[in-house]
Amino acid sequence: MSQDKPSIPKGTRDFGPATVVKRNYIFSVIKRTFEKFGFLPLETPAMENLSVLTGKYGDEGDQLIFKILNSGDFLSKVSAQDLEQGYKPLTRKVSEKALRYDLTVPFARFVVMNRNEIAFPFKRYQIQPVWRADRPQRGRYREFYQCDADVVGTNSLLCEAEIILMIDEVLSTLGLDDFTIKFNHRGLLAGIAEAIGAKGREADLCVAIDKLDKIGQDAVNDELRQKNFSEESVNSLRPILNLAGNISDLLPQLDTLLQDSEEGKRGLQDIRSMLSFLESFTINKAKIQLDVTLARGLSYYTGCIFEVKVNNVQMGSISGGGRYDNLTGMFGLPGVSGVGFSFGVDRIFDVLEELNLFPKESQTITQLLIANFDEASMRYALPVLQTLRAAGISAELYPESAKLKKQMAYADQKRIPNVLLIGSEEIESGLLNLRNMRTGQQEKLPLAQILEVLQNNATV
Amino acid sequence: MSQDKPSIPKGTRDFGPATVVKRNYIFSVIKRTFEKFGFLPLETPAMENLSVLTGKYGDEGDQLIFKILNSGDFLSKVSAQDLEQGYKPLTRKVSEKALRYDLTVPFARFVVMNRNEIAFPFKRYQIQPVWRADRPQRGRYREFYQCDADVVGTNSLLCEAEIILMIDEVLSTLGLDDFTIKFNHRGLLAGIAEAIGAKGREADLCVAIDKLDKIGQDAVNDELRQKNFSEESVNSLRPILNLAGNISDLLPQLDTLLQDSEEGKRGLQDIRSMLSFLESFTINKAKIQLDVTLARGLSYYTGCIFEVKVNNVQMGSISGGGRYDNLTGMFGLPGVSGVGFSFGVDRIFDVLEELNLFPKESQTITQLLIANFDEASMRYALPVLQTLRAAGISAELYPESAKLKKQMAYADQKRIPNVLLIGSEEIESGLLNLRNMRTGQQEKLPLAQILEVLQNNATV
Repeated sequence: MSQDKPSIPKGTRDFGPATVVKRNYIFSVIKRTFEKFGFLPLETPAMENLSVLTGKYGDEGDQLIFKILNSGDFLSKVSAQDLEQGYKPLTRKVSEKALRYDLTVPFARFVVMNRNEIAFPFKRYQIQPVWRADRPQRGRYREFYQCDADVVGTNSLLCEAEIILMIDEVLSTLGLDDFTIKFNHRGLLAGIAEAIGAKGREADLCVAIDKLDKIGQDAVNDELRQKNFSEESVNSLRPILNLAGNISDLLPQLDTLLQDSEEGKRGLQDIRSMLSFLESFTINKAKIQLDVTLARGLSYYTGCIFEVKVNNVQMGSISGGGRYDNLTGMFGLPGVSGVGFSFGVDRIFDVLEELNLFPKESQTITQLLIANFDEASMRYALPVLQTLRAAGISAELYPESAKLKKQMAYADQKRIPNVLLIGSEEIESGLLNLRNMRTGQQEKLPLAQILEVLQNNATV
Repeated sequence: MSQDKPSIPKGTRDFGPATVVKRNYIFSVIKRTFEKFGFLPLETPAMENLSVLTGKYGDEGDQLIFKILNSGDFLSKVSAQDLEQGYKPLTRKVSEKALRYDLTVPFARFVVMNRNEIAFPFKRYQIQPVWRADRPQRGRYREFYQCDADVVGTNSLLCEAEIILMIDEVLSTLGLDDFTIKFNHRGLLAGIAEAIGAKGREADLCVAIDKLDKIGQDAVNDELRQKNFSEESVNSLRPILNLAGNISDLLPQLDTLLQDSEEGKRGLQDIRSMLSFLESFTINKAKIQLDVTLARGLSYYTGCIFEVKVNNVQMGSISGGGRYDNLTGMFGLPGVSGVGFSFGVDRIFDVLEELNLFPKESQTITQLLIANFDEASMRYALPVLQTLRAAGISAELYPESAKLKKQMAYADQKRIPNVLLIGSEEIESGLLNLRNMRTGQQEKLPLAQILEVLQNNATV
């Protein structure tokens, strides 16, 4: 047996109780919202067949997929000649399975495999970890959770409107009050390419524009020139990228700009349709902004796209998504349009920490510790413990007699807000000593009243 | 891109919404109980360093660990000579990480890594998937969830008593009313080995006895003879394995039988101590049985051991555990005693299905579908939808106009118990048509009353 000092793989994390509890709070708000909007949970296996994943994320993505070594004699299918070919062609001979890289491809795979049993439109959410062999760095992990919700099988723009409502509901419920949901439409980007005399080149345009925030407009222009966009195109793009203002100011300008582009007009129509649905709803806290420079890298988006920025914290996008017209096409099922989005839980976690928005109640699991002084107090405590738990209160008895200081430190470290002290005096009187660990106050109360205090605390 | 018909790896499963919801019901009862008893959640990464896992599960176990191929050029550290050595020694050169095989070793690893920050006794629960390259068969999967709870850092037999209470609470809450928690003690098994003249040979004895249920006493005796237990030992074991009856009948017989064995007497003392704690509590449904033939294969148990059988269903053990005195010793931290147990969720799932014990309410996520007849009914429905959701009701509007039959089939398939029909008549009168999908009854009600009906349904 190895006696080495143990460690965990780079880019992975243990989540101790204090962190799990906070993360679960975020997950539960997201889950509750997804469910309120009619989304149902799906779970897929961590391992997918390598053939399902390969080719879906580009060459770079393929390299970042964690492959699983075939079990047993993984060399059995390998010849001496195979070995000379290098590691890339060898991979498929020694590995048939891999860890999922995102939740979108497994979702598409599930839809195709179960197309005959699914009632479309299919609204599913999925909250599971994914794995990427990326270089670990601050805020980038090799194992992390994605929280996706998608609807497939309908073109209705109500779905886009409801995505905005869900983002608004999740983030306002978490206590955020200054965030912007930016949206755009791939049709607008296609229309803009057309308007600047570069019809059909919206893919290159998107890649360049996507970097606008990071590298600035001059560098974007340089990139476009390198990609053989004409000087005229680059110049006519400039004022478009600077378009700003209310949605109601922007739309007429875009009508004019994109009047000769079918794609552009389709985009504007979709946006108007989405906005008309939104008008019937009340938005909590979200600012909603049409941003024609929003591009999002993923090539499979074909309609509306979204991204969410928290304005009062330095942090990248915490949520995003969009419509794709052919997700299941990769598995031979064309024509299933869908729209989806996801939340970045690690970033939301950091935002809530920075703004101190985790509610105190959400961090309490064990509500009460009964201190253990001696055999007599321990025996007295046992039925008390059962009464508390039967009333739904999470409670424990320190399992052995120990110094009170040690037991108090234990309660502190576990963030248990109440300690019940039962000494000989308390046993005699039946009035038990309840200590509030936050205020330090102690009060002698009969058990019935202690139950009341704790039940009230729990619901505050 | 691959256009193959996609599939998932053998021994893995997709969990569609109907199954996820039922599984989550089981998980939530288990979680709630663990938390009520003061256990806190821990999550560890799916990937562990291979060196952490290797050597912890025996040679056979090592073969069943899923290894992850090093990313990038996994051949870079491999020489031609290495290749000739065969796949076993090569594994460590092409793989540094592996998928966790259970939750116990990662827990021990976590405790050792965080020994200075943890307040002992440390009570943690962990509900996560594990992976084993076992041959898939009915009821045996390559990816499955474990639900573990352990306390480390105390010898108190209160922990053993509370394990029995937790098993009782979880299974009775799930609606089971005929199950037996069997327990035994490794000290008793050591004492029995001593009593039959085979002192120190309790490991072999356990392995043989463990098969008693499956192969019968004659075959067990044959196995013991093969392992060079004397005929006298085998003969004197026979009446011991047939010991049965109430705990209060058994204990005095065991006192006599094990009077010369220190280990045996320690076991009996532990059992009496555990039982004395249990006497202060009310047991819901569990039958509690001392079974001296209960052995449990795992070699790291050193004290009490448990196993749970449902009596009215044909099914193996659905829960089990025991005390181990040196779990963290494998990582160089000796002397940390602990006791733990786990629930087998897949088996519990099958038991609840067979006994039809999943509550109907636990299977409803979306409570209401608003049917979509035409543009007017859709527009009218939007604020209705918001009102419903604001009241905490999960509701959705069918996103496009479609035949009512199709929309009803959608509600049926999603198990949505209510459909709201808003036609021109309803728009005019403000009385909306609420259809109960279970009874088929329809009622025209104002929105306020619909809210009431749905909120009452939800809490039933």
